[in-house]
Amino acid sequence: MRVEIITVGDEVLRGETTENNTVWLSIALTAAGLPPSRQTSLPDDIGVIRDELSSAAARSGAVIVTGGLGPTVDDVTRQAAIDAFGGGIEVRDEIVIEIERRFRELGFTMPDGYRDLARIPAGAEVLDNIVGAAPGLAIDAGECLIFLLPGVPGEMKEIFSRLILPRLSTGEEDQRKVLRVYGLMETTVEERIATLLDADELERLSIISSPTGISVYLPAGIDTGTVERAKEILGDDLFGEGSDRLEEVVVGMLRERGLTLVTAESLTGGMLASMIVSVPGASETFLEGYVTYSNESKIRILGVEKNAIETDGAVSEEVCGQMAEGAVRISGADIALSTTGIAGPGGATPGKSVGLCWMGLSHAGVTECRKRKMGGDRGMIRLRTAGVCLDMLRRRLLTENR
Amino acid sequence: MRVEIITVGDEVLRGETTENNTVWLSIALTAAGLPPSRQTSLPDDIGVIRDELSSAAARSGAVIVTGGLGPTVDDVTRQAAIDAFGGGIEVRDEIVIEIERRFRELGFTMPDGYRDLARIPAGAEVLDNIVGAAPGLAIDAGECLIFLLPGVPGEMKEIFSRLILPRLSTGEEDQRKVLRVYGLMETTVEERIATLLDADELERLSIISSPTGISVYLPAGIDTGTVERAKEILGDDLFGEGSDRLEEVVVGMLRERGLTLVTAESLTGGMLASMIVSVPGASETFLEGYVTYSNESKIRILGVEKNAIETDGAVSEEVCGQMAEGAVRISGADIALSTTGIAGPGGATPGKSVGLCWMGLSHAGVTECRKRKMGGDRGMIRLRTAGVCLDMLRRRLLTENR
Repeated sequence: MRVEIITVGDEVLRGETTENNTVWLSIALTAAGLPPSRQTSLPDDIGVIRDELSSAAARSGAVIVTGGLGPTVDDVTRQAAIDAFGGGIEVRDEIVIEIERRFRELGFTMPDGYRDLARIPAGAEVLDNIVGAAPGLAIDAGECLIFLLPGVPGEMKEIFSRLILPRLSTGEEDQRKVLRVYGLMETTVEERIATLLDADELERLSIISSPTGISVYLPAGIDTGTVERAKEILGDDLFGEGSDRLEEVVVGMLRERGLTLVTAESLTGGMLASMIVSVPGASETFLEGYVTYSNESKIRILGVEKNAIETDGAVSEEVCGQMAEGAVRISGADIALSTTGIAGPGGATPGKSVGLCWMGLSHAGVTECRKRKMGGDRGMIRLRTAGVCLDMLRRRLLTENR
Repeated sequence: MRVEIITVGDEVLRGETTENNTVWLSIALTAAGLPPSRQTSLPDDIGVIRDELSSAAARSGAVIVTGGLGPTVDDVTRQAAIDAFGGGIEVRDEIVIEIERRFRELGFTMPDGYRDLARIPAGAEVLDNIVGAAPGLAIDAGECLIFLLPGVPGEMKEIFSRLILPRLSTGEEDQRKVLRVYGLMETTVEERIATLLDADELERLSIISSPTGISVYLPAGIDTGTVERAKEILGDDLFGEGSDRLEEVVVGMLRERGLTLVTAESLTGGMLASMIVSVPGASETFLEGYVTYSNESKIRILGVEKNAIETDGAVSEEVCGQMAEGAVRISGADIALSTTGIAGPGGATPGKSVGLCWMGLSHAGVTECRKRKMGGDRGMIRLRTAGVCLDMLRRRLLTENR
């Protein structure tokens, strides 16, 4: 069955939204064995949406539409669907009654604009929105099922996962094995894996790099022996499979070993702690974090020597190491990670340019520090530093376990 | 002139690529006064690409196509364009000679696949690729200009900026005034602004909501009097303009007033500190942060009373207030922000469900705490809490300054 995705919203066309419903839906559909055959983004224009809905219904078996379902005047997807499929309008008061109840529960009065949400294409099925206001809608357009979903990512994902994916699912999941790698260049990964594949498999190999790790999509149908050899060849650079995130893997290793962790951050300013805390259950291993941004706080909170800061500077191996050691000392945790560096755009000094970063790890009386020159802007430098720091800990735990 | 963007590649449809040529092109075109009228992603399928090129040429004045220009068998965009515009093929040996020279320069032999790059649609203009191999192509399709660009982001951006944007540019940059709002619902913002606009302006009003604030795009050409009235009507809910972020505005206010800030986070786990630190120059106002995730760390680091945690629980007004007060006391900062709550999916207790959050602010001897039930998943609950916390501080500073 051909499935396509349509996103509605002027903000998408102008590149103003950082939410990416299309990418999320594409990954989910592909994993269910239904890679989309087309993705389209359209403006908040009834006529354009209407025409595209008609074309899509003629060429595909299912169309997932996101956005334009809300209560404001530029939300026109519902009306476009009414126009496209010609069945007229049906008013479902229960939709508004439910939204009104939710507003009341939160202590608010429902704004009048929401009354319009009761007007839906005649015969459409209402897909309950349990995390937000506007419900989704399913329209039977003959040979094609049209699903209209709100553009708010949390709401879209919830409705799609609960009510749409099970209906579309073919039972033939995407059989491609995904290996997750950290600390190698994309080309190095490709060179290593290429030696295991024949020409046809190599063509279907896909390697996607991001600041939080590399995903290696091995071709579907590859034999398990080759998968195992690929894992061996990647060795310690392989940190997980599927959609594993580095922080999940690290938290899992720490929980398994019963170890506690604290963080002492300058450069990353809480980002490292926040990544760890993003993992459900992190509280079993993560005790506390210190964001020691000022020099004074590094001295007072972590006990870094004033002399070290004056002699070596706050961005130095000595200070980075003392931060990690101080964090272990005051918290009583098993392990501390520390970061210090120059995120830019200001802050460079002679011999220390923007992107210079130190990452520290203190555990069982041994402190190691690593220096890296990170590329990218302020946000990217901080994100890469947090990632390398987590990867340092992962490798240390791997080594210790041998 | 209507401009649209077409991206070619199976990997885009599967959501595997994190590069986003479409978003980059959309931002660049919008800034040049040419917001795209449509974005489409297509598979590596000659027939599908051919048909869409024909449709696009019929409805738009310019089409930017990225991807599928390389030397491998799945690169079919060139052939699709040859088929779509019916002018036949032209062989330009100089394209391959140049690529061969570059390979030689780097000490490599050019793979044979590249020879195919000489076959282009008859009459097309070659757009030199000075950072990679495959050149771009410009095709005059009557009423429409078709630009074919490589999918490699660095190559695409270079060719687009140097050779295409200057050709398309109207000289009319995006004139829309953007107002940034926090703490109101989208519909409330619309209701307020709608009173100032006529029907035509109202139709061109665009309001985009995200967890980090609402952007109100006032229609281009609106008179300055109306813009000023819109600002008045939004009052304290207006926090900035253009691309202002809440954390930038708050850091700016603190720096202006010479006030220092610290954070004491449980629920948000460093995210609040990290948002503040993401602002260049934050070090002038932000001293340090405490991520007191365990109860023990709330007591030991911040001096929260053990009794308060036992009686009221860690997620309570009392503990939230004591966290902020303790942070001011130990740091000597002017202001502390604190967060505690239940991010889920676990952690709910009788009477305290997932999403229950407390945000505290201590300043000048006065501590206020606010309770909110946040919707969304773990990440969204944490992000919203950090946002509300920053907004609390912004409003407090506004009030104090009157």
